[in-house]
Amino acid sequence: MTFGMFLPPKEELSQEWDVIIVGGGPGGLSAAIYASRYGLRTLVIEKETPGGKVSVSPSIENYPGFTSISGEELSRLFHEHAIKAGAKILFPEEVIRLSLRGDWKKVYTKGGKEFSARALVIATGSEDKRLGVPGEMEFYGRGVSYCAVCDGPLYKGKKVVVVGGGNTAAISTAYLSRIAREVILVHRRDRMRAEQALVERVLENPNVSFRWNSVVTEIMGDSRVNSVKIRNVKTGEEEAIDTDAVFIFIGVKPQSGLAKQAGVKVDERGFILVDYWQRTNCFAVYAVGDVTGEPMQITKAVGEGAKAATDIHDRLFGGAYGEPKVSWHVTPCIPE
Amino acid sequence: MTFGMFLPPKEELSQEWDVIIVGGGPGGLSAAIYASRYGLRTLVIEKETPGGKVSVSPSIENYPGFTSISGEELSRLFHEHAIKAGAKILFPEEVIRLSLRGDWKKVYTKGGKEFSARALVIATGSEDKRLGVPGEMEFYGRGVSYCAVCDGPLYKGKKVVVVGGGNTAAISTAYLSRIAREVILVHRRDRMRAEQALVERVLENPNVSFRWNSVVTEIMGDSRVNSVKIRNVKTGEEEAIDTDAVFIFIGVKPQSGLAKQAGVKVDERGFILVDYWQRTNCFAVYAVGDVTGEPMQITKAVGEGAKAATDIHDRLFGGAYGEPKVSWHVTPCIPE
Repeated sequence: MTFGMFLPPKEELSQEWDVIIVGGGPGGLSAAIYASRYGLRTLVIEKETPGGKVSVSPSIENYPGFTSISGEELSRLFHEHAIKAGAKILFPEEVIRLSLRGDWKKVYTKGGKEFSARALVIATGSEDKRLGVPGEMEFYGRGVSYCAVCDGPLYKGKKVVVVGGGNTAAISTAYLSRIAREVILVHRRDRMRAEQALVERVLENPNVSFRWNSVVTEIMGDSRVNSVKIRNVKTGEEEAIDTDAVFIFIGVKPQSGLAKQAGVKVDERGFILVDYWQRTNCFAVYAVGDVTGEPMQITKAVGEGAKAATDIHDRLFGGAYGEPKVSWHVTPCIPE
Repeated sequence: MTFGMFLPPKEELSQEWDVIIVGGGPGGLSAAIYASRYGLRTLVIEKETPGGKVSVSPSIENYPGFTSISGEELSRLFHEHAIKAGAKILFPEEVIRLSLRGDWKKVYTKGGKEFSARALVIATGSEDKRLGVPGEMEFYGRGVSYCAVCDGPLYKGKKVVVVGGGNTAAISTAYLSRIAREVILVHRRDRMRAEQALVERVLENPNVSFRWNSVVTEIMGDSRVNSVKIRNVKTGEEEAIDTDAVFIFIGVKPQSGLAKQAGVKVDERGFILVDYWQRTNCFAVYAVGDVTGEPMQITKAVGEGAKAATDIHDRLFGGAYGEPKVSWHVTPCIPE
């Protein structure tokens, strides 16, 4: 068990909090900064590393104030900011169950811990979509990757295939092209849908080539990946491409399973339904960031974190005047 | 006329744009960063200084990534970021009229310029509320101020009164206490409603004293302010306080007049009504930041700017695939 970097390693964490935030990405950490500055006792529980998905981004260029910063560095700044504001951050510790029906929201972790809070913020983010083709799971960790920063350095001077056409595919291709000898980008459309600023950087890159209108149908290898089979969706032609690795960036889906099990309503794609102040259908339960829907942007997440914490402070804890505007009456929050 | 800091001073600005953003605060500049990175030709028109109200904030501590930064510095970073992303920023230039009914949205400036764009983002922010008491307008600029950073340095070693109890009042009091000999904070409630982190800093300050449950009823002076009259709202007692200045921070109201005149719908407090993607009732017209409502936070504004630009790109300009998802049909946008 590891505590936040500025906490003494043996500090005992309280069991009861004003606010617990499940997930330590930009939305969760923004909520933590605001809630702590409002004087609320705030615990963030993060499964892996503070920063969440951002921490493994090669480069972030659209969070205003930083023209270009690594995801690792921005995550470090967010983490430090939350700690400095007074939040406690417990990681890596996975939340495995939520109980949202009573006055005290309960959080149970894989490590056997139990915490309670008056208000809960779900900031569990999104996870990478799988291609769903033969070989993908078989070779996961042996040539198949969903993270350029994590695994890119293994392919120095080698040949890699990138699958996808959005921002993550583009920025990861740019990053991999500086490490690998050759990058082949496979995308099902006839052009990328990433920001133009990123697309240009990829298209102009001499060691990147393209297979447009193409999908990967199989990932092959022996002990590790050695090739992929692709099909052109317009012509039907098939091709096998030798490669040392396949990096897959075809979008994300919300990590809303825990919340849904506990009675939080989600839409048909699994995104948590929230109102303007990020309230879910469950009283005193909020959701922020990628788990609530597009755009999957740091800017959106930090704005939502600020809104949720402000509403918790103003409406649940009665702002600085100590007069709750909403009574602590429990509305139904019934698991399916 | 001044152009953005990285533009040659004589550069002729195009008249036609993909996107025009009215207002260069955090919401407007975030929209500019995103729109430019999506490859859209983007013009920001700012009345005063890029950064807007933020540029005169003594200190910002709740924009994730910066534990403490002056408003001037953060504004400079946002401005540079937008320029680097490819946006043009025209300032100081005041927009005096909008025409939103046709395919081309039109913007007319005080300097006699006319610009057109396919999409418009209103990011005009909020303005300071007035007390509405005798002497306030008479002594404006002669002891009455709404900006601690702008006018605080004039009162080195002197005595000043601050009116208000929110974040801006708290942070301005902390700032002024380092310049002035003595600060008296007058607030109509019995405690501050600012973030706890700010309140503590003010309460612990030895040269700050308080008049709780009190309102200013008159500002007096001769050539300049020399005193204020206050009344305790609980006891009805009146008191005159000698002071060299009165700094007023009692909240803000939306600057939505221009938009409203052009047919954009606002709520009963004057905030522009928007949907999830920041769309107003007028086709291809968006609004972001303080002009759309609480919380008045940089985090909220940058999130909204990203949403508006993303929707303009994806739904109006058809994303990177060039197939607009919405036709350029004009919906009614009738001025009142």
